Amino acid sequence: MVQSLNPGSNPASSKIASERIRRKSEARRLDILRAAARVFRRSGVAAAGMREIAEEADLSPGNLYYYFAGKDELLFFCQDRTLDRMLAAAAAARASTIPVVDQLRAVIGAHLHYTLDELEGATAHLEIDMLADDLRRGIIDKRDQYEHAVRALITKGVKRGEFAPCDAALVARAILGALNWTVRWYRPDGAQSVAAIAEGLANYLLRGIAAAPQEPTEPVRAVSGGRK
Amino acid sequence: MVQSLNPGSNPASSKIASERIRRKSEARRLDILRAAARVFRRSGVAAAGMREIAEEADLSPGNLYYYFAGKDELLFFCQDRTLDRMLAAAAAARASTIPVVDQLRAVIGAHLHYTLDELEGATAHLEIDMLADDLRRGIIDKRDQYEHAVRALITKGVKRGEFAPCDAALVARAILGALNWTVRWYRPDGAQSVAAIAEGLANYLLRGIAAAPQEPTEPVRAVSGGRK
Repeated sequence: MVQSLNPGSNPASSKIASERIRRKSEARRLDILRAAARVFRRSGVAAAGMREIAEEADLSPGNLYYYFAGKDELLFFCQDRTLDRMLAAAAAARASTIPVVDQLRAVIGAHLHYTLDELEGATAHLEIDMLADDLRRGIIDKRDQYEHAVRALITKGVKRGEFAPCDAALVARAILGALNWTVRWYRPDGAQSVAAIAEGLANYLLRGIAAAPQEPTEPVRAVSGGRK
Repeated sequence: MVQSLNPGSNPASSKIASERIRRKSEARRLDILRAAARVFRRSGVAAAGMREIAEEADLSPGNLYYYFAGKDELLFFCQDRTLDRMLAAAAAARASTIPVVDQLRAVIGAHLHYTLDELEGATAHLEIDMLADDLRRGIIDKRDQYEHAVRALITKGVKRGEFAPCDAALVARAILGALNWTVRWYRPDGAQSVAAIAEGLANYLLRGIAAAPQEPTEPVRAVSGGRK
């Protein structure tokens, strides 16, 4: 191998340097996505402008456009990242050997964490109508994959006798609706933490499909051990 | 009373005529709202334009502006009408003497009917961020009233022992989320009717709060009478 006196042209160090630049650019892109998500949440996606997002990210508008071609692209990456994480959480849950009810509980927790705690998700997660057709198609595909993963967990739980027989597709949509709707009412400065909301929602949503040894035939006087 | 030879200036017949004009104008406004709702559903609220809505309503753009000042006002009336109907359904349910679980079931059915069957509701029901501040405030107030009505039904059911103890506010939001999310996936040409979706969702959502004489302590082998 020919040694060069110019370290910049040394293939190894040049690779390290370009890797450093790549990582730095990736980190900057993430910062920008988080700033965009804050603006989307504050102003609504429709009203949010690239100028406002640039200000929030502490960039000049020109600099912002260097990283993202437009609001569409920002919205796409916010949604795409969130869906990738939720899909990974669903795959991990599905591959585990814990009871299905706990697998679904883990998916519910991850879903709320990624859409409420992680700023990139949030409001932007819902606004797919605003994406151009080609970007939207990719997001819709991932959403469908995710919905199928949730449905498959429910079907597995029914098969194993952990869940009562049910319309798995409808229940999956009901669960996802309840989870996605949190974006509309959750406030970071509200009374309940995301973890507490996740627990409360999981308890309610899982109770609705839990296998029951016997159904109550009439209203009951005393309730023992009702999961809150 | 002075009789006039000009029937138009007769106060009684003039009142009838103006009532007729009012009713006609009201019917025309309703037709326009339905047309707007179809466009909102088809194109998304953000992308929908007054020109497209005018075409859908078979009006010239100028004529459309005679009835509604803009997209904002159309969106407002779509939402306002839907909320009025849902509030009326909740009030009727609350005033009835049927079991609370059936009161809540009636509210769920009405909610889906007004947002899925009645075109005015639909997508527009969700897009409150797009309203100007003063219009949005009125809609948010009515939504809050409606959410409180649903929450009050749950609290009443818990008090009567029909429902298990629960976080009524969180459960109300979960139910409303599951219901509102249908707007995102329901297709009029889909496999299930609105009534079938309402029944399936109500069964699942009410099962999650039903009082149970005893909680299963371990996964059960056979499931008897699991409500589908």
